Amino acid sequence: MSVAAPATAVWIDGKRRSSGDVHISALDRGLTLADGVFETMPAFGGTVFRLDQHLRRLEGALATLGIPSQPMARDWVVDAVRSADVGDASVRLTVTRGAAPGGVAPPSDVRPTVIVSVGPMPAFPSSIYEHGLVAHVASGRRNEHAMTAGLKTLAYTDAVLALIEARRSGADDALFLDTAGHCSEGSSSNLFAWTGDSLLTPPLSCAALPGITRAAVLELAQPLGVHVEECVFGLDVLLEGEEAFLTSSLRGLAPLVRVGGHAIGTGKPGDLTRRFMAAYANLIALECSL
Amino acid sequence: MSVAAPATAVWIDGKRRSSGDVHISALDRGLTLADGVFETMPAFGGTVFRLDQHLRRLEGALATLGIPSQPMARDWVVDAVRSADVGDASVRLTVTRGAAPGGVAPPSDVRPTVIVSVGPMPAFPSSIYEHGLVAHVASGRRNEHAMTAGLKTLAYTDAVLALIEARRSGADDALFLDTAGHCSEGSSSNLFAWTGDSLLTPPLSCAALPGITRAAVLELAQPLGVHVEECVFGLDVLLEGEEAFLTSSLRGLAPLVRVGGHAIGTGKPGDLTRRFMAAYANLIALECSL
Repeated sequence: MSVAAPATAVWIDGKRRSSGDVHISALDRGLTLADGVFETMPAFGGTVFRLDQHLRRLEGALATLGIPSQPMARDWVVDAVRSADVGDASVRLTVTRGAAPGGVAPPSDVRPTVIVSVGPMPAFPSSIYEHGLVAHVASGRRNEHAMTAGLKTLAYTDAVLALIEARRSGADDALFLDTAGHCSEGSSSNLFAWTGDSLLTPPLSCAALPGITRAAVLELAQPLGVHVEECVFGLDVLLEGEEAFLTSSLRGLAPLVRVGGHAIGTGKPGDLTRRFMAAYANLIALECSL
Repeated sequence: MSVAAPATAVWIDGKRRSSGDVHISALDRGLTLADGVFETMPAFGGTVFRLDQHLRRLEGALATLGIPSQPMARDWVVDAVRSADVGDASVRLTVTRGAAPGGVAPPSDVRPTVIVSVGPMPAFPSSIYEHGLVAHVASGRRNEHAMTAGLKTLAYTDAVLALIEARRSGADDALFLDTAGHCSEGSSSNLFAWTGDSLLTPPLSCAALPGITRAAVLELAQPLGVHVEECVFGLDVLLEGEEAFLTSSLRGLAPLVRVGGHAIGTGKPGDLTRRFMAAYANLIALECSL
C-alpha cells in the first residue's frame, strides 16, 4: 500500500508557519522523550469529524501526564482547517510537554508546545476497501500493563517496527496481541471480528486504544440491529470468524480478509462489513453536513 | 532530587547551532512517532566514557529499526565535546529517521536527523550517594515482549510517567517489574541486588536495557572477587537482599536503600555497593586518563 506524501501546512502555538520555518526546539521533550500526545483526525468539507471526542481523549491523556490543559487547541484546529483549504484533509494535533534540557523528570516551569498540521487526506488505494487488507501478526506484543496503556502518546516506535515487519512479510498492516496472547489492535487501528452472531472488539484492558472510529462503530451497531460486545478473545476466534475489519480515523473502516496465510471467512469483504462501511459513510455525511 | 537545568550546546547533522537556532522540523518522525534512538553519555576531562560501546548499541538499534548507519556520529560527538568545553559533561546523541509528512509506515527517501547536545554534568545531590535512593514500584509494567524491547528508542513516555508517580509518592526513582512480575529496571537505570552470596541483575529477557554501566559492573565483579549473575528474580528477592544499587550512565552507581516503605538490608548504603562505586570511579579515571 503506497500513500502519496501530502503537502502539509503547520501551525505552532496557534501561528501559521511558512514552509521554511516549520521548526520546534531540538530540546523539546516531545522529541527527546516522546513526552506528549496527539490526535489524527479527518476533516470533510472543512469540518473535523468528531473533533470534540478527539479533544476529550487528548485532554484526558494530558491530565494523566500532568501536562497543562490546552483549551485554545480547539480554535487553533478549526482555524487551521479553514485556512488550509485543502478539501478533505488529514489533521494532526500534537501537544508536547515543551522544551527543557536534560533528565527524564519533568521540570515545573516548562511551556507545552502545540502543533497543528493539515494536509490532504492520504490517497489510500481503493483496493483496500474493495478487496480488503492482509494483516501480519506482530512478533512483539502490546502491553496492557503499561503506565501509558490507553493513551495516544507519541511513543509509536513499536507500531513503526511492527508495520515494517508486516510490509516485509507482504502484509498491509500489523495485528498486535497483548502480552496474555489476546487480540489487541492493529498498528494504528482497532479490530472488529464478526462471528456470525456477535460483533466483537477487544476491550481497553487488552491494550486497545479507545479509538474514535471504534466508538462510532459501537454506536452504529444498535441501529443496524447487530449485537456488539467488547470482549476478550484470542487469535483463534478471529481466524474462525466470518468477517473482520479494522477501524482508524483516516482510513475509516477497512475489511480485514486475511491474517498471514489464513483467510477470514471467504477471504473477501463480507456483507456485515459493507453495511458498517456504508453506515459510517452516512454518519460522516450527516455530522459534516456533506 | 532537584537537578539544575544546564546550558546545552547543540549540533545538528554535525553543525553547531547558535542558541536561537536549535531547531528541527516539526514533521521529524522522531517527534511525531518517537521513530529514533539515543544515547546519553558522560564525558570526563573531554573524553566520553565508553563511547564505542554506546555507539555499538546505537548502531544495533538503528539496524533493527531500518534507519541508516551513522558512521559520522563518532567524530561529531568527539568534536562537540571538545568544542563545548564545559568540563565534566553530559552528552546526548539522538538519531531519528528524519522529517516526513503523515503515516506510520516509513517512507524510503527520508534522511536521518542527527542531534548531539552537550551540557554540564547534572548536579546530582551528594545525598543520593551518601544515603542512597528510595524507589517506588511503578504501577505499570515494562514489556519484555515489546517489538522494541532492549532498544534505547525515544519512547520514554512510560519512564516519564513512572517517575512522576514515584516523585508524588516521595521516592527518588521508579522501579519497574516486567509483565510477569519479575524485577526489570529503574526508570532509566539498571538494577543490581546483593543477596550476601551473589550479585544479581535482571537479564535482558526481563525487559532490562543492556546498560553500558551495567556492563561495566558485570566486568568489575571478577576482579573484586564477587560472584555476579544475570538472573530472573522477583521483588521478594530484592527486598530480602542485603544491598542493592542502580546504575546509569550519568548518575553512575547509586545505592538503593528502600523500596516504598521497606528498607533493603540496614536501609543504608552497604560495603559491597561502596566497593563497586570505588572500582567504577577508578575505571573512569583509568579510561578517561584523569
